[in-house]
Amino acid sequence: MQEEIILELYERTLERDYVFKGKVINVRRDTAQLPNGKAADREVIEHTGGVTIAALTDNDELLFVRQFRYPIGEVLMELPAGKLKAGEDPLTAAARELLEETGAVARNFYDLGWIYTSSGDTTERLYIYAADGLTFIGQRLDEDEFLDVLRVPLTEAVRHSAAGGYGDAKTDIAILRFDAQRRIGMLEPIRF
Amino acid sequence: MQEEIILELYERTLERDYVFKGKVINVRRDTAQLPNGKAADREVIEHTGGVTIAALTDNDELLFVRQFRYPIGEVLMELPAGKLKAGEDPLTAAARELLEETGAVARNFYDLGWIYTSSGDTTERLYIYAADGLTFIGQRLDEDEFLDVLRVPLTEAVRHSAAGGYGDAKTDIAILRFDAQRRIGMLEPIRF
Repeated sequence: MQEEIILELYERTLERDYVFKGKVINVRRDTAQLPNGKAADREVIEHTGGVTIAALTDNDELLFVRQFRYPIGEVLMELPAGKLKAGEDPLTAAARELLEETGAVARNFYDLGWIYTSSGDTTERLYIYAADGLTFIGQRLDEDEFLDVLRVPLTEAVRHSAAGGYGDAKTDIAILRFDAQRRIGMLEPIRF
Repeated sequence: MQEEIILELYERTLERDYVFKGKVINVRRDTAQLPNGKAADREVIEHTGGVTIAALTDNDELLFVRQFRYPIGEVLMELPAGKLKAGEDPLTAAARELLEETGAVARNFYDLGWIYTSSGDTTERLYIYAADGLTFIGQRLDEDEFLDVLRVPLTEAVRHSAAGGYGDAKTDIAILRFDAQRRIGMLEPIRF
């Protein structure tokens, strides 16, 4: 049944053409065959994916970073996040970004799943974690990375996220999933 | 204070170079001046933005569409959504996509804010609405659009979204914000 539906919706690649190869993204313009047999252009952004992490202090505060986002020309409040390095395990990347950006190491990690950020346009998949049992051992920012670290009480962050105050997809999903999983009693630390 | 922080994090555009102009996206490779005065490359995806809508039936079910997403090569379960046409009002676009994809018109709309889908890479901003008081008057799919419409009980959708089952950013945020705003008593219909 599931297979039948997939076949009936499936688009087959007829041609694959790289129009840009960059440091962070590649862009293709493919020709795809639609379920009705017709051909259509498909613009595809290839992205290595990333991670984000909702890190909770012993005082029930979430760690945020405030940074300038060049494409939109704005400073956003976001959870710590970063791109996956080639072949890097997502949880390792999340722990690495948490340490680099906020100086925190965590005793416990929680798997909050992942999202496609915009599946009609990009291959980007973003893995989401939570963490607690934090110890602070000092930020390790990249040479060209500029950000401020802030703490926001969890209840305030959940309310702000529900109201649409952050405007950042990964931040909202991580906070709302973390809160929902806690309330439902779904949250279990990852066992190593 | 806020202004001071923005100045201190701000990156100034030194050069702007279009490397791809497509139907859905344009891609630039800019040179930006960092807060420390150094120059850095910035890859930017220009995107017109989009809308999504959590539409609730009189039986407390959310309307979903199941469609093939070419970049990831998978069939996803998503809330109805689409791109903004040039100059189109986001609420008008949401009502249009709801009608085209599911055949529903709504009596009430709710503003659930917006998100940047991936603010480090793309200008894409996605506006989120909810709706209820639905009447079904027939799907109006684009000629080359292929999708199935499904109904999922709201409580089940919230749980699935919290658990990470859909894997689609806009779908998760719309569902979790809708649920959170309902619980908090924040949800008010848009007045026309």
